Amino acid sequence: MTDAAVEAAVEAAVIAARSVTTRAERAGWLEALALELDADRAELVRLAAAETGLSTARLDGEVTRTAAQLRFFAGVVREGGYLEATLDSPDPGLIPPRPDLRRMLRPLGPVAVYTASNFPFAFSVLGNDTASALAAGCPIVVKAHPGHPGLSRRTADLAQSVLPAGMFSLVEGMAAGVALVQHPAITAAGFTGSERGGRALFDLASARPHPIPFYGELGSINPVVVTAGAADARGPAIGAGLVGSFTRDAGQYCTKPGLVFVPDGGAVETAAREALGTAPASRQLTTGMTDAYTSGVDAFDPLDGVEVARGTAADGESAPALVLTDAATFLAHTDVFLAECFGPVSVIVRYRDTELDGLVASLEPSLTATIHRAPGEDVGALAATLAAVAGRLLFDGWPTGVAIGWAQHHGGSWPATTASIHTSVGATAIRRWLTPIAYQDAPQEVLPAELRDGNPLGIPRRES
Amino acid sequence: MTDAAVEAAVEAAVIAARSVTTRAERAGWLEALALELDADRAELVRLAAAETGLSTARLDGEVTRTAAQLRFFAGVVREGGYLEATLDSPDPGLIPPRPDLRRMLRPLGPVAVYTASNFPFAFSVLGNDTASALAAGCPIVVKAHPGHPGLSRRTADLAQSVLPAGMFSLVEGMAAGVALVQHPAITAAGFTGSERGGRALFDLASARPHPIPFYGELGSINPVVVTAGAADARGPAIGAGLVGSFTRDAGQYCTKPGLVFVPDGGAVETAAREALGTAPASRQLTTGMTDAYTSGVDAFDPLDGVEVARGTAADGESAPALVLTDAATFLAHTDVFLAECFGPVSVIVRYRDTELDGLVASLEPSLTATIHRAPGEDVGALAATLAAVAGRLLFDGWPTGVAIGWAQHHGGSWPATTASIHTSVGATAIRRWLTPIAYQDAPQEVLPAELRDGNPLGIPRRES
Repeated sequence: MTDAAVEAAVEAAVIAARSVTTRAERAGWLEALALELDADRAELVRLAAAETGLSTARLDGEVTRTAAQLRFFAGVVREGGYLEATLDSPDPGLIPPRPDLRRMLRPLGPVAVYTASNFPFAFSVLGNDTASALAAGCPIVVKAHPGHPGLSRRTADLAQSVLPAGMFSLVEGMAAGVALVQHPAITAAGFTGSERGGRALFDLASARPHPIPFYGELGSINPVVVTAGAADARGPAIGAGLVGSFTRDAGQYCTKPGLVFVPDGGAVETAAREALGTAPASRQLTTGMTDAYTSGVDAFDPLDGVEVARGTAADGESAPALVLTDAATFLAHTDVFLAECFGPVSVIVRYRDTELDGLVASLEPSLTATIHRAPGEDVGALAATLAAVAGRLLFDGWPTGVAIGWAQHHGGSWPATTASIHTSVGATAIRRWLTPIAYQDAPQEVLPAELRDGNPLGIPRRES
Repeated sequence: MTDAAVEAAVEAAVIAARSVTTRAERAGWLEALALELDADRAELVRLAAAETGLSTARLDGEVTRTAAQLRFFAGVVREGGYLEATLDSPDPGLIPPRPDLRRMLRPLGPVAVYTASNFPFAFSVLGNDTASALAAGCPIVVKAHPGHPGLSRRTADLAQSVLPAGMFSLVEGMAAGVALVQHPAITAAGFTGSERGGRALFDLASARPHPIPFYGELGSINPVVVTAGAADARGPAIGAGLVGSFTRDAGQYCTKPGLVFVPDGGAVETAAREALGTAPASRQLTTGMTDAYTSGVDAFDPLDGVEVARGTAADGESAPALVLTDAATFLAHTDVFLAECFGPVSVIVRYRDTELDGLVASLEPSLTATIHRAPGEDVGALAATLAAVAGRLLFDGWPTGVAIGWAQHHGGSWPATTASIHTSVGATAIRRWLTPIAYQDAPQEVLPAELRDGNPLGIPRRES
């Protein structure tokens, strides 16, 4: 695909952006897309399984999730609170005098979406970025992931059958991706993928004559801390749960728990080793990812004080692996241990009481952090430290499986995401595609209905 | 000042960031700062007048504004709605199952603030950026503007007398400013100034190994459209009002109306010419700005079809100026006409009916856009076009004098601001210094009080 395809897609998006759409219309699109996904589910899952190697059960569940996301954003856009409608009444007595001011968010304009390999539905062509941008009212040009080209095209056809002309286009190939983020009419970009790829596109977005926001969700190690109390109370369950979480779907999750601090000599390690023996081998999404996983795990082998325990796997499969070490070794090689290794591997670091603070202090920002504690145990100080480096802080569970909701946050400071203040999952993901406007002393008929006197559309507003 | 001063300031900020402060404490700081400004008003105004050449009346009003901003943010932080507290109750029936999720915003950490020359109080050491960052709970390192160094130091002393150690530091000099935005512990930066200076710092912020958000408020032309109906209804008042607005305080406002589309042959131009004859000459803030203004205005002289009308001025003063041209000439030289020229000058472009759409289509993003219309005139289409390139769209007024409020927005796409989705004035300016966190299945005692069951602090929350 050439620059001409990008040009055509963006030009169509520019024209589409000129037509103002209502929230009700856009909610209708999102619901129609969800219906189409459900209707074509069997064919789509077949296509996805053939291209990704993911199981049909997992893919079927992912279609359900993706349809739920589309319907969720239909609800968000119908409710209207996301517009942050705010009205100030005039007050000539203030310094400076305050006129009639009415603020809300408006769509930015045409946006670019770079899709992920590991969720061929939920973070791909009709995934969270597309759903939230459509809800916001932004025309979208999607850059397809080469890991599932046929599915991408099929899903794009489905989208174009539902959406008005220009609201949605698909482009393919690295050159198209590079041209897209640099196109003057593109106003923002969303990305889910590797730190290297995300950084390259972020740099292009920032170097433009008129830079644009680049919302990238990149790498994450997702640290877990198991307290001594938790290990005593339910060490075997935690060890087994850990292996279940990091081997789930070949470990190909941005929220995979990749680093676990466990008390030295506890039951967690024993149980994890046992679970590894029966954990399933898996196929990675691409041969490139298979090689990266293998070399990533192998890189731990030569380190003194590090043991790599591997499960079993047939040819072409990836064996799940546990990397085990102590606190001193970890702290001496944080550059190795804090690098994300995509796939079914996790690092267990054994700590003695006095070592935990130093371990936690070494962490970089992550999408999630997890604490396993004994019932009633006071973990306030630990939680405060982890809260500063995690977008989501969870307790007595596993970070894989990112729920959809109004209160969800799937972000974090670099390298978790490029823009620490934004999320790619949950209701506020829509804000990435919006920008504020304030109307001053505007006639009623010029105002969007959401800002008119008497709140005719009945949306949540702040009035003072 | 050397890198060592930056290092010391940031280290102190890092330590200060570890102490969690309550909203009530921070509101107290802001109110105490406002009281100190009021108490030291006479001395501060004297210092400012000596360093900037601005009138004491203007500076006295600016102190009042600055104190009002500090008190406004005390109110914002007390109310607590800015935290966006959101609670989702568990729902195991969803795919994926939804746990207990509670989201709010938390302070980013130490931040940098680069102050402006043209508002030595309201956008300087204790200006909007500092007030909003303190409200958010972020320790601040301010880079002083060289245009008012004595006042900056005096205001910094005042701040440090009120705030806890490390919450506020001042650094000076270009080298310190460059080191500050690159310091690994700085989490975000605010800037008000020129497009060139802002771009240089934005590029440094983006090129960091871990990039940070850079919130710059840069250049703005602030276009005004006078409809034929408005010119007929009150052309003389509009012409006089225009000159009053662009010559106010030497034209040194980011919201100065720098470009006005008026109907060919109307009364607006005649009145503006008359008003220019009696408009005051002025002193720019620095000799560098005086020279830049003079050469900026002189650059229009050689253009065919352009008239430069100048008011009178004594030696060392800047004469107010009107640049007058027609639509065709404007469109042939948009590179010249759309460049911001800081100081008391505005460009009047005469248009015939059929030319207005082309003129409006040529505009770049601005902080504001203004429409003067006849009473009851339908300007819906024009308003929709301007709304796409303006952060604030106002009617039948002038953009100078940016009111403080919940609904204010002072931003816009590049070059108005670097991050199109943020504002430097108004309640939501606080969001620049915050990042979300979601707590999943957290014990009550670990949660911030704002997220606990029963809403013990009584803040606005969304619960579902």
